[in-house]
Amino acid sequence: MEKRFEISLLLDFYGELLTQKQRDIMDLYFNNDLSLSEIAEINNTSRQAIHDAIKRSDNILLVYEEKLKLLSKDHILKENLKNIILKLNDLQTNIKDEEMNQIICDIKKQVIENI
Amino acid sequence: MEKRFEISLLLDFYGELLTQKQRDIMDLYFNNDLSLSEIAEINNTSRQAIHDAIKRSDNILLVYEEKLKLLSKDHILKENLKNIILKLNDLQTNIKDEEMNQIICDIKKQVIENI
Repeated sequence: MEKRFEISLLLDFYGELLTQKQRDIMDLYFNNDLSLSEIAEINNTSRQAIHDAIKRSDNILLVYEEKLKLLSKDHILKENLKNIILKLNDLQTNIKDEEMNQIICDIKKQVIENI
Repeated sequence: MEKRFEISLLLDFYGELLTQKQRDIMDLYFNNDLSLSEIAEINNTSRQAIHDAIKRSDNILLVYEEKLKLLSKDHILKENLKNIILKLNDLQTNIKDEEMNQIICDIKKQVIENI
């Protein structure tokens, strides 16, 4: 997985474990694509200080993932649910009854809500 | 949810965030049902020290749950998946075709694996 994208996902899982300031900086950098210099200006500090803050937060997120593995568990769950959708699609192509088809549609919707 | 049971579940989710010693004490108390005195004896310390250690670990687990909500999210996911199983059961009672029924059985197995 691309490192930048991975950190952005880890932020979704573990962002609450950072301080508000760390979270804001990470959000500006990883989700809003601001440059280090732009974030430094907003925070009235140096580019280097922001660089260090991001590195520290990166490490915090990675340590939590190493311990709790939420990102990798979530990935496995999503793959399993996608696989279930594929099987429901197979079922749907083989069942002509309108009412049964509607039930399968509802089940698919419910599975998708968890992906 | 009964407090003792809740802590035992929280241990499954956040146990890795405790120290090895904290985890061992919590495991003996909540999963193996040892008394404070018995755990104190194993650890060559006082009953009060074990009581305090458990209280501190309880708090750590509850703070993580307050921030990450893994237990409550997992509960919602499991309820959704159980609901999907019920709908698949409905479908199964209405479909007489043997092959289709086998596909539904496979889907149910896959859903259950995630509960």
